[in-house]
Amino acid sequence: MKAGILGGGQLGKMLLQAAANYPVETFVMEKDPDCPAGHLCHHFFKGDITNYDDVYNFGKQVAALTIEIESVNVEALFRLEQEGVTIYPTPAALATIKNKILQKQFYASIPVPSPSFVTTENRNDLLGHVGLLPAVHKIALGGYDGRGVVILKNENQFELGFDAPSILETLVEIKKEIAVIVAVNQAGDSAIYAPAEMIFNQDFNLLQYQLSPASLGEKVLWKAEAIALTVVKHLKSPGIFAVEMFVDFQDNVWVNETAPRVHNSGHHTIEANYCSQFDMLWRVILGYPLGNTQAILPAAMINLIGEEGYFGNVQYEGLEEILRIDNAFVHLYGKKQTRPGRKMGHVTVVSSSTQDLSYKANMIARTLKSKS
Amino acid sequence: MKAGILGGGQLGKMLLQAAANYPVETFVMEKDPDCPAGHLCHHFFKGDITNYDDVYNFGKQVAALTIEIESVNVEALFRLEQEGVTIYPTPAALATIKNKILQKQFYASIPVPSPSFVTTENRNDLLGHVGLLPAVHKIALGGYDGRGVVILKNENQFELGFDAPSILETLVEIKKEIAVIVAVNQAGDSAIYAPAEMIFNQDFNLLQYQLSPASLGEKVLWKAEAIALTVVKHLKSPGIFAVEMFVDFQDNVWVNETAPRVHNSGHHTIEANYCSQFDMLWRVILGYPLGNTQAILPAAMINLIGEEGYFGNVQYEGLEEILRIDNAFVHLYGKKQTRPGRKMGHVTVVSSSTQDLSYKANMIARTLKSKS
Repeated sequence: MKAGILGGGQLGKMLLQAAANYPVETFVMEKDPDCPAGHLCHHFFKGDITNYDDVYNFGKQVAALTIEIESVNVEALFRLEQEGVTIYPTPAALATIKNKILQKQFYASIPVPSPSFVTTENRNDLLGHVGLLPAVHKIALGGYDGRGVVILKNENQFELGFDAPSILETLVEIKKEIAVIVAVNQAGDSAIYAPAEMIFNQDFNLLQYQLSPASLGEKVLWKAEAIALTVVKHLKSPGIFAVEMFVDFQDNVWVNETAPRVHNSGHHTIEANYCSQFDMLWRVILGYPLGNTQAILPAAMINLIGEEGYFGNVQYEGLEEILRIDNAFVHLYGKKQTRPGRKMGHVTVVSSSTQDLSYKANMIARTLKSKS
Repeated sequence: MKAGILGGGQLGKMLLQAAANYPVETFVMEKDPDCPAGHLCHHFFKGDITNYDDVYNFGKQVAALTIEIESVNVEALFRLEQEGVTIYPTPAALATIKNKILQKQFYASIPVPSPSFVTTENRNDLLGHVGLLPAVHKIALGGYDGRGVVILKNENQFELGFDAPSILETLVEIKKEIAVIVAVNQAGDSAIYAPAEMIFNQDFNLLQYQLSPASLGEKVLWKAEAIALTVVKHLKSPGIFAVEMFVDFQDNVWVNETAPRVHNSGHHTIEANYCSQFDMLWRVILGYPLGNTQAILPAAMINLIGEEGYFGNVQYEGLEEILRIDNAFVHLYGKKQTRPGRKMGHVTVVSSSTQDLSYKANMIARTLKSKS
């Protein structure tokens, strides 16, 4: 089968590492030929994934198409779908998720619990919602990896808000931040991974370190799984979905947002689970049976993020030390340039001891640095 | 670092899947651009790995060079080494192993136990060694995957012998056939994997199914590990080496042969060990610390071999059934054409239960077929 990926970042790269185990001819489109996934596909096309013609022409060459980032031209995907290309996630599901206003309305319509919100058309609109503060302002289109999200504590901070269609969401007091990955095949059957629990780097709003399975009480676990499955079921699309949720101090579970693709919160599944999220997506695309989501061992995953103050040719500090850890798996994405906040790699640790996991995760986060 | 692989088969493919985790720019040379590894490298070169000029010109582009098959032009490697290219295994180690006569003389010189042998220059020479029968005739140069090896039971079978420089080796009564993989880094430190135990498909002399760790008594295990380390130490070369050995009914351990590269007997290390043999070779090449050879779980590995009587476009029979097995990992090499005896893929099963491993290995060997 000929299958294409829109986007050539690290998610594309890990998809292609998994694809190499199956009889699939891979196509990638991305602006930068030196991107992490560029050299691991059968056919690379230089193109703009936000451009209608580029996406359409790329998609016409393949039987199936998937994405590794939401910011793609959905109109072209709708046309390709009409013309018989299999697209996972479906363009309809992607359109719902891609626009944060539609995404929030979708949660309300199911309904699943998600923080209450209002929409703002421009920065000025914020003035009418002073009563909601403190709140989170999220741009409707184009946010990614912490970009397009800002916390507004009081009206003096409104200048930080987005002067474009956005949502203003009440701030949940977060006890835990978790994510659940769900796979759905062409027949509508689903498979669910155990929740991962996240600790964010406050400076960049990027995941710093993650434990899986999350340590949750049974009731919270059931709630989280039920909500994730409900969200994904209502998207009515095959594919892989990551449902990000908050647990508050009353053990309520709130949907934060959903990604209709392989996701950072599932990186540990490469080594820690029988079927990784990347392997799973190929099973869905190729019409194979869903894989086994069970964990082989509990895992911690540490993102390697471009260090503040460093720009230019990457130098990995502490790499040797990390490579000596008996139960750690190093993934460097091969990006030549580092910059503050850029995802440069990740490390997964597997262990049956939670203490071992958190000790090593902290050690790795402290030791391994992307500098220049 | 720029690193090249001579050969583009499944071993090259799995090397490149692992390389994608490290900052290495990969080069592959192989005659067939549609080979399994062809699309997973940064730079593919169509060329003949047995040709001096092709190997030399390819090697001049990279800082380090390795092989995924022994039948390469060693003379070009010697010159490249002189001109500063890092080559693992070293051309000297490769030259010793590549020629089965030199390889046997090497074992005798260490010494390590290896079945006694005589050399034959041509088929006629066999007549002088009737007293050695039954014996194994092995061609000195170019044997691979069971080609170039024949058992001669009596002199009526001499016509099956090779009319080229060969060795005639006494037949060991084999209780078990095992292999031990050893990694050696640039400083000469080594890391050893637990032995794998093999069951061969008699028709093709190809591995059919393999268990790791091998079930060996403590003394046999110690002997096997000591012999493997001794062989590799005397090769005086960084790299990955697979030492194949026989255990006879008196629990003697005999070296059969050594491969100076990643090896079929280490496929299970991808999922079953902390550091796979493929990851390990990159650590050696890139000058990183050696990885952890410990097993996460015991494993069985089943080769998917082109079914007798089928030639042409491959069709995988039983694939869906195998993909439903909870603890199985499927690797299809992406070869478009099947033919009898061709290695088309493999499946690894991991489990803490030996019974589960052998049950599923047998089931997979019975169920999954490469037909046309």
